[in-house]
Amino acid sequence: MSSIPSFPPLLNDTFLRACLRQATDYTPVWLMRQAGRYLPEYRDTRAKAGSFMGLATNVDYATEVTLQPLERYPLDAAILFSDILTVPDAMGLGLSFALGEGPKFAHPVRDEAAVDKLAVPDMDKLRYVFDAVTSIRKALNGRVPLIGFSGSPWTLSCYMVEGAGSDDYRLVKTMMYSRPDLMHRMLLINADAVAAYLNAQIDAGAQAVMIFDSWGGVLADGAFQQFSLAYTARVLSQLKRHGVDGKVVPRIVFTKGGGLWLKDMAPLDCEVLGLDWTVNLGQARTLVGGKAGGEGKALQGNIDPNVLFANPAQIQAEVAHVLDSFGALHRATTAEPDRPGPTHIFNLGHGISQHTPPDNVAVLVQAVHDHSRKMRA
Amino acid sequence: MSSIPSFPPLLNDTFLRACLRQATDYTPVWLMRQAGRYLPEYRDTRAKAGSFMGLATNVDYATEVTLQPLERYPLDAAILFSDILTVPDAMGLGLSFALGEGPKFAHPVRDEAAVDKLAVPDMDKLRYVFDAVTSIRKALNGRVPLIGFSGSPWTLSCYMVEGAGSDDYRLVKTMMYSRPDLMHRMLLINADAVAAYLNAQIDAGAQAVMIFDSWGGVLADGAFQQFSLAYTARVLSQLKRHGVDGKVVPRIVFTKGGGLWLKDMAPLDCEVLGLDWTVNLGQARTLVGGKAGGEGKALQGNIDPNVLFANPAQIQAEVAHVLDSFGALHRATTAEPDRPGPTHIFNLGHGISQHTPPDNVAVLVQAVHDHSRKMRA
Repeated sequence: MSSIPSFPPLLNDTFLRACLRQATDYTPVWLMRQAGRYLPEYRDTRAKAGSFMGLATNVDYATEVTLQPLERYPLDAAILFSDILTVPDAMGLGLSFALGEGPKFAHPVRDEAAVDKLAVPDMDKLRYVFDAVTSIRKALNGRVPLIGFSGSPWTLSCYMVEGAGSDDYRLVKTMMYSRPDLMHRMLLINADAVAAYLNAQIDAGAQAVMIFDSWGGVLADGAFQQFSLAYTARVLSQLKRHGVDGKVVPRIVFTKGGGLWLKDMAPLDCEVLGLDWTVNLGQARTLVGGKAGGEGKALQGNIDPNVLFANPAQIQAEVAHVLDSFGALHRATTAEPDRPGPTHIFNLGHGISQHTPPDNVAVLVQAVHDHSRKMRA
Repeated sequence: MSSIPSFPPLLNDTFLRACLRQATDYTPVWLMRQAGRYLPEYRDTRAKAGSFMGLATNVDYATEVTLQPLERYPLDAAILFSDILTVPDAMGLGLSFALGEGPKFAHPVRDEAAVDKLAVPDMDKLRYVFDAVTSIRKALNGRVPLIGFSGSPWTLSCYMVEGAGSDDYRLVKTMMYSRPDLMHRMLLINADAVAAYLNAQIDAGAQAVMIFDSWGGVLADGAFQQFSLAYTARVLSQLKRHGVDGKVVPRIVFTKGGGLWLKDMAPLDCEVLGLDWTVNLGQARTLVGGKAGGEGKALQGNIDPNVLFANPAQIQAEVAHVLDSFGALHRATTAEPDRPGPTHIFNLGHGISQHTPPDNVAVLVQAVHDHSRKMRA
């Protein structure tokens, strides 16, 4: 590690408080993929960078695009701009992005010989990510907290075996069903790599971390617990609990399509569970949100990003529907604002679409703040 | 209708009994897309037919391919070989299949003018489907029952608006969120068309019918109930209860990705609920399977089709895992074999992959029969 960075004090801790199930004046909101192609200023920076990886590996560009959505919208958190596949790239799999296509690995992992070659990569190969974290945190200047992230061990394995996106996960599941021993070896390495990667982000200044289990939901009941959840738990068990400023670093786990397994996720050693739009927030709160004064998870999500293609009045109605489905909080006015209880962090249930009209995002963010203040009044 | 067909007596009623929650000697099994590209004899017939629609619209070819998997495997049901998009094609949307690609509509439904033009099609345009049903039922000669099917109103709308497959359902959801009135109009027409289509299949000889809500699972909680489930219920309310031979025609509803909404589906007026592999069969049985002597749904599913890429011993173990997860039946030996109780129909959780080794399907079918007989012993 280089010397421990120091940062200006945090001005808006609403997101971090909600992660810790503490009372807030309103429901904090950020959006998965909030720095992205739907913003013309993002497209300009990407054009300057020449390519997606050119953007993600350049500290200045990564800082620039991370802050772009905050200039437009009063979001309550920033998230590191990076790719989910940096870790396998550092393992030597050769990541590339063909224009208009998804990610691709030159050396997918499809047999025992390929698994034998895998190891936790030297974190110095990912220095550009940690430098971006420090740079972004400095540039944020305390406005809102910075979230670091990684793909989950299973999600990384999906890409590592398939070599690209997939619609049936045939190759990775073939390995899982026919050579579970190989799959477990790969997942163990991935888990330790992800833990080291997130810890280095925390040391570089990340104030919360999120594990994206984007493809956990494609697994069968039973296989999910064994091949995804167990390795997410292994990552969590290795994570640092405090950031460079001594503050607790909340950990968020999001399994897309994992709504059926919320009870299985309840024992995870993390503060927040992300939910997609198929989940009823009120039911999720009952299952894992805990009671006032008791243990439980903060819940993050879960509006369908396609709501952003409707008109302002309809966006407002859908936002209110999602906030109302979580239910009332009645806690900001108590004499014990730090006493834990159920909390909700507003987000999409998946990344924002590149086709989203930027003005509609402003409508959504304001609707979250306005309606959630009303709910507390 | 042409004259009412008559058919030979049914020799294997295991599937139909399980649909009606009656005791069976073993767990019946059939496979979604069991007549398909993984079979070399299917590929031969398709080559003769020249195209997918050439295959689906020719009564002799459709009969030939429907029976092919039954020649190889002791399956307990046959399912009509057809496409899910025949109904919108009959509405005039212009269905085509480009080589190696999915279905495509020449005239997608994206605005009010296009919705205005929609109507329940003349069922005579779908005569080739009903003729195929009658032909297949005759060719089956009573070996096993024949299942007819349709896409759900919502699933048809997805294709009708998107014009093809989609990975984000942006266009159909944009219409749903921004013009719910148009979406409801389309769904109403689709529901009435699907009901007429399935009733004509029943009149032509179908002994059970299945509604494939393949894309219900992409909807948000709340939207699913309003835009998918309500119209599936509308279809069910219009379906004939008895086939040409006077026997009850069981109705199966399968929402891929709908495991979170099983309780919402419990009141559906159907006999069987299909489940994908994310659902725990034992939990589903507790929720909607009912008790011995009481009301409830038979459950159909739900092994991951990718299990078929493992070796025989692993396929057998996964089959046993799925059968065991449903739980024991203890009913075949009772003195009242027709008294209803929880039942399981073994199936995949999604269509079989075109890459599946045919020999592995034989292993799976035999494992279902063998293990489920042992469970009853």
